[in-house]
Amino acid sequence: MILKLKPELNTQQRDLFISFLQGQGIDFLLREIYGMHLCLIFSDIENAQIVYLSSLPFIEEVVDTPKEYLLASNTWKKSSTCFDVEGQIIGGKEINIIAGPCSVESEEQIFKIAEHLHSLGLKFIRGGAYKPRTSPYRFQGLGIDGLKYIRKAADAYDLRVVTEVIDSSLIPEVSEYADILQVGSRNMQNYYFLKQLGKINKPVLLKRGMYARIDEWLMAAEYILSAGNEKVILCERGIRTFDTSVRNTMDITAFPLIKSLSHLPVFSDPSHGTGIRNLVTPLALASVAAGADGIMVEIHPDPDKALSDGMQSLYLEQFTDLINKARQVAAAINRSLDNDSANDKQKKQNICVE
Amino acid sequence: MILKLKPELNTQQRDLFISFLQGQGIDFLLREIYGMHLCLIFSDIENAQIVYLSSLPFIEEVVDTPKEYLLASNTWKKSSTCFDVEGQIIGGKEINIIAGPCSVESEEQIFKIAEHLHSLGLKFIRGGAYKPRTSPYRFQGLGIDGLKYIRKAADAYDLRVVTEVIDSSLIPEVSEYADILQVGSRNMQNYYFLKQLGKINKPVLLKRGMYARIDEWLMAAEYILSAGNEKVILCERGIRTFDTSVRNTMDITAFPLIKSLSHLPVFSDPSHGTGIRNLVTPLALASVAAGADGIMVEIHPDPDKALSDGMQSLYLEQFTDLINKARQVAAAINRSLDNDSANDKQKKQNICVE
Amino acid sequence: MILKLKPELNTQQRDLFISFLQGQGIDFLLREIYGMHLCLIFSDIENAQIVYLSSLPFIEEVVDTPKEYLLASNTWKKSSTCFDVEGQIIGGKEINIIAGPCSVESEEQIFKIAEHLHSLGLKFIRGGAYKPRTSPYRFQGLGIDGLKYIRKAADAYDLRVVTEVIDSSLIPEVSEYADILQVGSRNMQNYYFLKQLGKINKPVLLKRGMYARIDEWLMAAEYILSAGNEKVILCERGIRTFDTSVRNTMDITAFPLIKSLSHLPVFSDPSHGTGIRNLVTPLALASVAAGADGIMVEIHPDPDKALSDGMQSLYLEQFTDLINKARQVAAAINRSLDNDSANDKQKKQNICVE
Amino acid sequence: MILKLKPELNTQQRDLFISFLQGQGIDFLLREIYGMHLCLIFSDIENAQIVYLSSLPFIEEVVDTPKEYLLASNTWKKSSTCFDVEGQIIGGKEINIIAGPCSVESEEQIFKIAEHLHSLGLKFIRGGAYKPRTSPYRFQGLGIDGLKYIRKAADAYDLRVVTEVIDSSLIPEVSEYADILQVGSRNMQNYYFLKQLGKINKPVLLKRGMYARIDEWLMAAEYILSAGNEKVILCERGIRTFDTSVRNTMDITAFPLIKSLSHLPVFSDPSHGTGIRNLVTPLALASVAAGADGIMVEIHPDPDKALSDGMQSLYLEQFTDLINKARQVAAAINRSLDNDSANDKQKKQNICVE
Repeated sequence: MILKLKPELNTQQRDLFISFLQGQGIDFLLREIYGMHLCLIFSDIENAQIVYLSSLPFIEEVVDTPKEYLLASNTWKKSSTCFDVEGQIIGGKEINIIAGPCSVESEEQIFKIAEHLHSLGLKFIRGGAYKPRTSPYRFQGLGIDGLKYIRKAADAYDLRVVTEVIDSSLIPEVSEYADILQVGSRNMQNYYFLKQLGKINKPVLLKRGMYARIDEWLMAAEYILSAGNEKVILCERGIRTFDTSVRNTMDITAFPLIKSLSHLPVFSDPSHGTGIRNLVTPLALASVAAGADGIMVEIHPDPDKALSDGMQSLYLEQFTDLINKARQVAAAINRSLDNDSANDKQKKQNICVE
Repeated sequence: MILKLKPELNTQQRDLFISFLQGQGIDFLLREIYGMHLCLIFSDIENAQIVYLSSLPFIEEVVDTPKEYLLASNTWKKSSTCFDVEGQIIGGKEINIIAGPCSVESEEQIFKIAEHLHSLGLKFIRGGAYKPRTSPYRFQGLGIDGLKYIRKAADAYDLRVVTEVIDSSLIPEVSEYADILQVGSRNMQNYYFLKQLGKINKPVLLKRGMYARIDEWLMAAEYILSAGNEKVILCERGIRTFDTSVRNTMDITAFPLIKSLSHLPVFSDPSHGTGIRNLVTPLALASVAAGADGIMVEIHPDPDKALSDGMQSLYLEQFTDLINKARQVAAAINRSLDNDSANDKQKKQNICVE
Repeated sequence: MILKLKPELNTQQRDLFISFLQGQGIDFLLREIYGMHLCLIFSDIENAQIVYLSSLPFIEEVVDTPKEYLLASNTWKKSSTCFDVEGQIIGGKEINIIAGPCSVESEEQIFKIAEHLHSLGLKFIRGGAYKPRTSPYRFQGLGIDGLKYIRKAADAYDLRVVTEVIDSSLIPEVSEYADILQVGSRNMQNYYFLKQLGKINKPVLLKRGMYARIDEWLMAAEYILSAGNEKVILCERGIRTFDTSVRNTMDITAFPLIKSLSHLPVFSDPSHGTGIRNLVTPLALASVAAGADGIMVEIHPDPDKALSDGMQSLYLEQFTDLINKARQVAAAINRSLDNDSANDKQKKQNICVE
Repeated sequence: MILKLKPELNTQQRDLFISFLQGQGIDFLLREIYGMHLCLIFSDIENAQIVYLSSLPFIEEVVDTPKEYLLASNTWKKSSTCFDVEGQIIGGKEINIIAGPCSVESEEQIFKIAEHLHSLGLKFIRGGAYKPRTSPYRFQGLGIDGLKYIRKAADAYDLRVVTEVIDSSLIPEVSEYADILQVGSRNMQNYYFLKQLGKINKPVLLKRGMYARIDEWLMAAEYILSAGNEKVILCERGIRTFDTSVRNTMDITAFPLIKSLSHLPVFSDPSHGTGIRNLVTPLALASVAAGADGIMVEIHPDPDKALSDGMQSLYLEQFTDLINKARQVAAAINRSLDNDSANDKQKKQNICVE
């Protein structure tokens, strides 16, 4: 249940109302979020109390929401959420493309990739510096050196950096170098960590847990939103099923389903979603056709020598081909890619899909 | 392992060769399939024997195939399989559209739907007469009356009939009325039944078991192929996973994956795949983008009164919208829908995708 | 909803009541089952009608049941179902042991096993004559010869035969040789087939589908029960999950869960449930501890040469050890094995667990 | 691959050998673990190098291990691992019992439970102070107050404390109050966190991820072991499958399977494993029968008023009944419960199962 307060409420009236609610012993959160004045009341509230509160003069609207993910729900916020990341719009009508290696391996490697992205007019680069590997004996990433290399390459080619943060203690360090912080599939329900990410002022790309139901994913987003960070991007990356033909099973249904439940942007990661290079492009196209707001893929100048996930990384030429095909499919559903904008000015005017 | 015999082999030479193989105690199947002369040798054959057989003058080619699905594999048959169903090509460059109600409920209902399909230029109607229902207390279908109604409606509107057969004892009856026999998800590993379907002269649309791995699905197809029926259509209809947000999880990866393993056409059933009406169109588009050769959807003039699966049936107008969007996405990947052909002559020339 | 009619009702009164119900347009089944007079009314009935019917003088009791599995539910039949199979009680306090090879391979093989079972005082032998194999190129069973061999061996050693029937057309043949007909996991939702099995007068051992929820399994049993066959044995044999460490994941929870929902006996098949020989005994013991009413295991005099499922078959000595351990665990929960009865007379008196 | 060095090696010789290996550019870890001198060589090593190293005079034994979990494997350490926790043996022949509430709710609540455990002769209490909850709007635990209450209650009744730590930043605080630190299912692949837990001197109870394969679970344990902490307890708590009849599916096969792969103790948590109170006891018994080394269950003096997981918490009397039954089943497989020891002296002599 969300109660929207009237915008004309002054601070004194507001404080009075809050004191009144506290006096009633009702648990609630007060938030100004997405530019709206609002007041959250949780699931425990009784119907009689709702009726009573609705009758008060301070209330503009009472919105019934899912009990567990209030802020992530589109019952109270009808418009899609979009926001600016260093001049690029996420969650708008244009589909964002993020690409890069699984791991930052060297300055040379990441510069080569950054140059290729720039040549295609792309705006986002990804690359892991701290890698969550299933075995302790596999390459764990370059750490802070990796962060420095990717930042340097991004700055050289006008790119925004997306990279993973794997522990709450690393948030300050990663925030210094990244434009978007990625939370990996295995950390999606690491709630203490999510709360810390709710306190920073950078967007968070929240990968779906490979075992997470849609509602659990939205509740994980709610941890970040309710702690104060409005900029959450969901990212489907394949779920774990009985079928071991591929590494994971891409849940393409997640795109229209999330759109029917939430205002948050939802991206697709077909590289982890399939784990097999030749399946990446068809699944990227399927994601676009189904309504994904962005595509994140792994690319590598020499995939066979990659220190991690080489099997699923595209060759640079394959990636160029993916971009061309994705542009066609996007056009078929009346959208475009983010590297196709003639100018920024026009983009700002088309900031959100209606 | 498949041995292709030389086409110039005469009957006498062939019989001699067969006698020779039998004398060696080697188990094998002899088949003329897809217009090729061939001889199958099974997985038990030893390497030394392969070397020896390869050296014989009667052998054109020795092809290494997966052990369990030889005929379904594309290792020996490189070209996509396509065939004619009463004047319509399945498995060609054009994407086939099959639509109709979950169950045939009355003559009036199925005529109404047939008329709508005809008005859209479509060529295939589906509808269940024998229904496999989870509970014995739910509507089990009209049986033979249902078959008669759908045949009559199809004949009136130049449509081909796709309907399910649920037991080996019903194959003769259903074959009399249907143009394509559908095998349901729950019967995909009913092997005795599959063998019977291998002996008929009608195409079989083989739904994927909701629990079946890709290789198990291909082995089920192999039961039909190895019994002599060359006309098998695979149909993805959603798999069962932990996520209960939707009825099933559409495995969109199955389309490019099947294409990389097999020459058989593979269709998509987003109605069962999602179980929710509003998700059907996005998933149909995703299937097309990922490479599906056909789309099968449930439609109903009045879904809320449907005797089965109303929740996932499209309204007729929604279906028209789906067709329009699917045409756009098909064009984006350089394909078209089967109702868009200007004339049959041209179609015959483009019989298969290269 | 189940309405139990008063036992003193005579035929005339009963016919009158039935005519009355039919006149009301209410769908129902009339059954004398498990020795009770009863009348089933299905889920569609309205509350007002229930109230009205309850008030009639012919009605002894109105029982609210699950809508989808009425007869399988323990809401109306509180006592556990047990029945006699050629002198042996199934579903009683004693735990039944069924053992034998995956496939009947020869007369000699099955006689050797039958002799071993007899030496341990056991009463049931299993063995497949018609085998549902994932690939068409694997051993498909000896067919009718296999049935003849196992019957002959069973008769020689006072054993009852459990064997699988894989198609409705084979029911008459298999019924001639078997004492209990087994339905395999892949046929659990082959409903047309289940209905045929409801019309025979032999017990049916219904394996759980590897993908079937508990309620779906009970609904499959309901198909058999509602068609008139009261003798259904459920058998857990492992479900399919993401974990490929073993062939299937034994769902041990199924035993107490089924006991809380149904009156039917429930057996355990740890051979298919694990697929690995060394795990069979621990899982058999766990099944007993959790409340299974019977254990079915695969054994073979020479597992490494078995034509099917050798990996999961116990050596004969391992099986003897399993029996000894299972006897200890059964005693710990106040039950015993069926080969331990001093005499039949006493057994008949303890026919069911309370 | 593990190389065990000869115990008589002096420091100088050892340093020499290490320098030599480093000079060869071979990656390795050097560890004294479980009282043995050893040297780890990782998966990348080539066969020729192994042959060479094996020939050196410093090497006692070369053991081939799984590549990904070397230290957790029982290929090099044949004996079961057991260790002392404040006077109680974990991983020995006696089965440990850990019980307590899901959450510490108040000092009174936890004292009441502690008293009950003491009255049954039990030695371990569990209770959450920091709770990982799916929704941010559910009770998140009492935090440090919860830790203080459970420590106080444990000290009053001679109990050892098991409690969860949910973030690397909380390890010092939780270590101060707990005797065993629990890692929750959702954190099982939070690798950075696991590495921190490898540096402390307290045992870690590592719950299996609800989506984790057996090998992934062992690799998670390897993160802790390879960072230097030898005291790891594995704990099966149910995996996520398609079947939603219960909260999770207890994987009882995990007990004998882990025993066949690893030397680590493995416990069972049937409370989370089933999520339903009436299923807890049967599954606890099944776990014992299958070879679990310990049982951890949730109990509550008033489950219906519990702030979390009340549905799966046993009433205190139910728990007493579970203990009595578990004792019987343990005896059937020749083991006993840890509250049954006549005296500590005898226990120390029977420290490990052979």
